[in-house]
Amino acid sequence: MSDNTYRVIEIVGTSTAGSDEAIANGVSRASKTMENLDWFEVIEIRGHIENGSIEHYQAHLKVGFRLNEPA
Amino acid sequence: MSDNTYRVIEIVGTSTAGSDEAIANGVSRASKTMENLDWFEVIEIRGHIENGSIEHYQAHLKVGFRLNEPA
Amino acid sequence: MSDNTYRVIEIVGTSTAGSDEAIANGVSRASKTMENLDWFEVIEIRGHIENGSIEHYQAHLKVGFRLNEPA
Amino acid sequence: MSDNTYRVIEIVGTSTAGSDEAIANGVSRASKTMENLDWFEVIEIRGHIENGSIEHYQAHLKVGFRLNEPA
Amino acid sequence: MSDNTYRVIEIVGTSTAGSDEAIANGVSRASKTMENLDWFEVIEIRGHIENGSIEHYQAHLKVGFRLNEPA
Amino acid sequence: MSDNTYRVIEIVGTSTAGSDEAIANGVSRASKTMENLDWFEVIEIRGHIENGSIEHYQAHLKVGFRLNEPA
Amino acid sequence: MSDNTYRVIEIVGTSTAGSDEAIANGVSRASKTMENLDWFEVIEIRGHIENGSIEHYQAHLKVGFRLNEPA
Amino acid sequence: MSDNTYRVIEIVGTSTAGSDEAIANGVSRASKTMENLDWFEVIEIRGHIENGSIEHYQAHLKVGFRLNEPA
Amino acid sequence: MSDNTYRVIEIVGTSTAGSDEAIANGVSRASKTMENLDWFEVIEIRGHIENGSIEHYQAHLKVGFRLNEPA
Amino acid sequence: MSDNTYRVIEIVGTSTAGSDEAIANGVSRASKTMENLDWFEVIEIRGHIENGSIEHYQAHLKVGFRLNEPA
Amino acid sequence: MSDNTYRVIEIVGTSTAGSDEAIANGVSRASKTMENLDWFEVIEIRGHIENGSIEHYQAHLKVGFRLNEPA
Amino acid sequence: MSDNTYRVIEIVGTSTAGSDEAIANGVSRASKTMENLDWFEVIEIRGHIENGSIEHYQAHLKVGFRLNEPA
Repeated sequence: MSDNTYRVIEIVGTSTAGSDEAIANGVSRASKTMENLDWFEVIEIRGHIENGSIEHYQAHLKVGFRLNEPA
Repeated sequence: MSDNTYRVIEIVGTSTAGSDEAIANGVSRASKTMENLDWFEVIEIRGHIENGSIEHYQAHLKVGFRLNEPA
Repeated sequence: MSDNTYRVIEIVGTSTAGSDEAIANGVSRASKTMENLDWFEVIEIRGHIENGSIEHYQAHLKVGFRLNEPA
Repeated sequence: MSDNTYRVIEIVGTSTAGSDEAIANGVSRASKTMENLDWFEVIEIRGHIENGSIEHYQAHLKVGFRLNEPA
Repeated sequence: MSDNTYRVIEIVGTSTAGSDEAIANGVSRASKTMENLDWFEVIEIRGHIENGSIEHYQAHLKVGFRLNEPA
Repeated sequence: MSDNTYRVIEIVGTSTAGSDEAIANGVSRASKTMENLDWFEVIEIRGHIENGSIEHYQAHLKVGFRLNEPA
Repeated sequence: MSDNTYRVIEIVGTSTAGSDEAIANGVSRASKTMENLDWFEVIEIRGHIENGSIEHYQAHLKVGFRLNEPA
Repeated sequence: MSDNTYRVIEIVGTSTAGSDEAIANGVSRASKTMENLDWFEVIEIRGHIENGSIEHYQAHLKVGFRLNEPA
Repeated sequence: MSDNTYRVIEIVGTSTAGSDEAIANGVSRASKTMENLDWFEVIEIRGHIENGSIEHYQAHLKVGFRLNEPA
Repeated sequence: MSDNTYRVIEIVGTSTAGSDEAIANGVSRASKTMENLDWFEVIEIRGHIENGSIEHYQAHLKVGFRLNEPA
Repeated sequence: MSDNTYRVIEIVGTSTAGSDEAIANGVSRASKTMENLDWFEVIEIRGHIENGSIEHYQAHLKVGFRLNEPA
Repeated sequence: MSDNTYRVIEIVGTSTAGSDEAIANGVSRASKTMENLDWFEVIEIRGHIENGSIEHYQAHLKVGFRLNEPA
């Protein structure tokens, strides 16, 4: 087995429902354009407030995925 | 439009139900005495344990709000 | 009352359901072998991804508990 | 001379012109409602982008000021 | 029992005698204008030097206190 | 309105004139190949020195932009 | 001489008298159940406040000790 | 000479041999699909353990490269 | 499959030969008294100097291992 | 070419005009007594406030310079 | 008044008596070879343990002092 | 025995061979002009890349040494 290399990108998933769904939405969107997603790390949870209640949650994530060998 | 200034305060919301509700409770309480709440950042999630299970969650938050011009 | 001393250990609770359950699972497992659990702090939320969706959440926790006096 | 106590608050000054003016605007606004401002520390420079250019700068500041003795 | 909310403020206590007294002076001053003080965290110890010896100690503290419900 | 996802990339803008221009140059270059740029955060200001004076400023930035839905 | 290995544990010493005594109490308690204690590092000083004055100091410490070879 | 802009990406190089080779493997893989690589920074060294010995090293790197002007 | 829990401990491996061997020595020593070691993270590389050259390297590590269910 | 060694020192440049000039003043002063200055990193921007406006900016810098071989 | 420049150096003061005396010893020693000492910041408190009790405290300090103009 | 004071300086050792040799080169160069070197801490590993492979490693180090009493 060769030595794999991974790429790590930063994304921000959002949700009006809560922080776990914000994480899941970000991972789901990343999976649409990148293959081999392997892990995520939450680097920050933030959100916007409107009229005194939380309008949406923002999950700042690092997402790691294995690089295929270039053709 | 003039250049706005924001104030950022630190609060700790608590909940027996979970970390998202602890966040929401903290934001809700802050909105009772401050206007123009705009965003929050989670800076720490902690909690107390009693008899081996979680008694409550504590969400340490920064909450930002726009300052009105002084009269 | 004498001056108590506490020990703080680091554990990783996991869950397929979400980050709060990962925290709760870690605390629950720790309570099976340690007494006097007092507080937890979340130091990182990570997770594994399989086939583009979250396979499980990992909650890295510090858990503090009061030391009994040695016999 | 007695031992002074200081309060430190966090504000966000903004400017369309640049980061130094964002700092200065934040300090200026704080001075309208607080006395004895003594120092500032820049904790973050951020900003918003619109149509590919910087729309405004945001200087996150800690501002310290000496507390008067309560009457 | 309802879910409490706490506020956390940053102050700087000072003392010519030492760092513990700087902490205590800051907490004491805060208690004159705020109720329900609950905990402190030391975030930095600094000080001024004059003629080669320490002129005073500065204890940067976060101080947490429980918010009463607004009337 | 659906839940947006954002991507955050790290770039280094440079300028011989100053740190704000280094920030602006980095944002301007990023806008040539990416759409929907939304915010930036300065993560470090560095620079090179030649013959005892500053030869250029380097602004390390995170730049966030909204992802379009994949076609 | 072989290459030693050390273990590092986190404890919280407490004291009503001051932060140095909280450190010393934590080290003293650790020495009752562990041998070969070698160094400590203070990672946080916190404390509880009751009726506006400091009720006790908490010194969060890392304590390192040399591991004996397993029998 | 115009003001250059650089891009910084995060990758994870791996090796069964050691941490320097993990760094080198990551840089080598990045050079296959990106031009003008200029510097790297190690942000974390981790690794997997199997049967009590290190199975592979993982070097988390930031890698910076100069952007060409878009055509 | 049930939700696993992991424990993370901090150790310091040492070596006169280099930092990778210090890491390996620490992991090897840990494997003598703990089962199911799974990963390590390097949190600091330090060392002692004698007569102007490096006498030994110290690798501060976090080591994670899966907890078995208590009997 | 031999392997160079660099020294990194910390200085604080000040200016009444702005943060870039504070950086430049610090670098300029350092160049009067040290040769081969190569790079700087801004580690903190602070300043003093008098009568509600900024009296001077303080740029805390690390400055790196190449060491000549000792004679 | 011209724009002053400051130098910041790192020292470690030690004491068998306590952390404040370790700070004071470090500052006192620094004042023997450097003029115009102006402030200190505590960056770490550590210490050595022998036979289960604290043998000495080590206060890692940054010490700032104003630079005179070179002749 | 009197209370020793230590000085801590920051240097950058470099090597074309690897990170351990970069550390060793930096310590070796420091030992040519300073006595009583006692310990080092690695604060960052970086390096330059040319034509897609690592041209040299840079080990940013803190090096501590005991101060002699001034004459």
